[in-house]
Amino acid sequence: MDTKKLGRQTVRLTSPPSIAGFGSAVGKKEGQGPLGRCFDFASQDDSFAEKSWEKAETAMQKQALSYALDKAGISSDQLDYVFAGDLLNQCIATSYSLRAQNAPFFGLYGACSTMAEGMSLAAMLVDGGFASYAAALTSSHFCSAERQYRNPLEYGGQKPPTAQWTTTGSGAVILSRKGTGPFITHVTTGKVVDKGITDANNMGAAMAPAAYATLHAHFEETGRSPDFYDLIVTGDLGSLGKEIVTDFFQRDGIDLRGRYDDCGVLLFDPTTQDVHAGGSGCGCSAVVLTGHLLREMRRGTYRNLLFCGTGALHSPTATMQGESIPGICHAVAITTEKGGAS
Amino acid sequence: MDTKKLGRQTVRLTSPPSIAGFGSAVGKKEGQGPLGRCFDFASQDDSFAEKSWEKAETAMQKQALSYALDKAGISSDQLDYVFAGDLLNQCIATSYSLRAQNAPFFGLYGACSTMAEGMSLAAMLVDGGFASYAAALTSSHFCSAERQYRNPLEYGGQKPPTAQWTTTGSGAVILSRKGTGPFITHVTTGKVVDKGITDANNMGAAMAPAAYATLHAHFEETGRSPDFYDLIVTGDLGSLGKEIVTDFFQRDGIDLRGRYDDCGVLLFDPTTQDVHAGGSGCGCSAVVLTGHLLREMRRGTYRNLLFCGTGALHSPTATMQGESIPGICHAVAITTEKGGAS
Repeated sequence: MDTKKLGRQTVRLTSPPSIAGFGSAVGKKEGQGPLGRCFDFASQDDSFAEKSWEKAETAMQKQALSYALDKAGISSDQLDYVFAGDLLNQCIATSYSLRAQNAPFFGLYGACSTMAEGMSLAAMLVDGGFASYAAALTSSHFCSAERQYRNPLEYGGQKPPTAQWTTTGSGAVILSRKGTGPFITHVTTGKVVDKGITDANNMGAAMAPAAYATLHAHFEETGRSPDFYDLIVTGDLGSLGKEIVTDFFQRDGIDLRGRYDDCGVLLFDPTTQDVHAGGSGCGCSAVVLTGHLLREMRRGTYRNLLFCGTGALHSPTATMQGESIPGICHAVAITTEKGGAS
Repeated sequence: MDTKKLGRQTVRLTSPPSIAGFGSAVGKKEGQGPLGRCFDFASQDDSFAEKSWEKAETAMQKQALSYALDKAGISSDQLDYVFAGDLLNQCIATSYSLRAQNAPFFGLYGACSTMAEGMSLAAMLVDGGFASYAAALTSSHFCSAERQYRNPLEYGGQKPPTAQWTTTGSGAVILSRKGTGPFITHVTTGKVVDKGITDANNMGAAMAPAAYATLHAHFEETGRSPDFYDLIVTGDLGSLGKEIVTDFFQRDGIDLRGRYDDCGVLLFDPTTQDVHAGGSGCGCSAVVLTGHLLREMRRGTYRNLLFCGTGALHSPTATMQGESIPGICHAVAITTEKGGAS
């Protein structure tokens, strides 16, 4: 039994689950970005025909899950487990979207690392024989997040250049015991890392040390070097956090350039879209994965991908009490090759 | 592999994990209740020597985990995974308590079902060979919850008789691949159930249908009848929710009386402690389990226990938008008998 455990943070899945379906739904701005044409649905109106931003977020989740189920060729009645969460207080976008599904549900809170967290747990339950199908689902919405974390939209608050733009989007992934891949082969689970950043407008810097720690553990425990991967992607550190991670590895004598990117950087075009340091929010890495990366894997662009969800586990209450921002990063190794677990 | 799955919601663990340690820390009122002498630590002061209620909650979590680790005879360095969450926005009591632990961490949001949710996932990862030791940890604090969900304490708001009292307390459980029990044999995972209750001061009624649904699934899928268990305990429906669940089963011709109770009812004395319909909060079922029930199992009072965590997945924002309260219930079967999985 112990052979699954490669080290303190990493497990190797003995029967790598297959990604049977994935779906994405995004808002207007995301649809206008460089990945705009990849998403299953890009709305012309961030309300998603609902009366509140929170309900709009719920509607997006239902859409993303529905696309993923459709591509997997199953109904939600066949899901053994759904792992889901979001950024809203008490994760209500999720609770209300799951109300519509007839599926056993585990609620998560991992901030922007939620997609990777959900995929980690779903992959282990499928590999462990507890599930034939398990889903990971998450979302964020610029308008619901702004009024909860920062200021009401009407206030028109200004942001510093280090700030990131909360993605309006939802992504869903369905894992299956059988299938043709891509396959999840390894799960590296993060610890809470807090290096003392207190500026909630600089979350890239707050999360970068957690990303570095998890990547470092992954390479050490798997024995893989970064060049094993065609792409290592964090989400969502933004341009500043990406630079910090690159710097950290450079100090170790490891050059990540050319094979490392960040979902917050990929989602928007900094020259035409005013998003400061890049995208953020649970939806960011979720839609870049489900809209862009997994499609490219199926097309053969990438064979081996290391998907690293990063989360800032702070809250406005903690920030007001002067606390620093704890970060976390969960990594999932994905391959198109059957037998890639070796 | 499929033999683990007994039905849509229930899995049977093939190598039932052992509960190696459990710890509890509570506030003053909980320490004065009928179970007061069972807890590892009962504070004389709900501040736990911290400057804010949120930090007090973090301090309680650290204490509860520390007692549990101590009894399991391990350090947090030996934990393969910690599953934890709480009621605070962005689960900050948890993120800040985990900052002090050197352990891979999965953040949960399951409202008052968090202890059962964490034990379910921890048990599956241990049984599946992904972990030697895994912890489940949660907490709630009356003062941090009141100001977040209802009114600031200073406002002195009145509550209706259906309202429950948020427990100040934290509980932790350590599961191990080896040990002398009690053992977790079955996990029944809940679906979101919403019967349209909109009164946030009547959460027992909002959660009772979810408890009924999960219990019903558990009995059907395991083939066990309620009298298999010496005690079936929900947490935390309070006196009103307990009555509703009892009524629901009575309509099915099943008499639960004598073997069914609720953690919200057990924790306080309604004649001398003014808690209206009983205790609530993630901490409620967590401290009743870790302070009272598991001790009684070790003493031989109960051989078979069905522990059912119930959560109300609402938020003040959703309530203000007129939404009803979704409920969920996760059940974990615990036995003192080695080989109890049969």
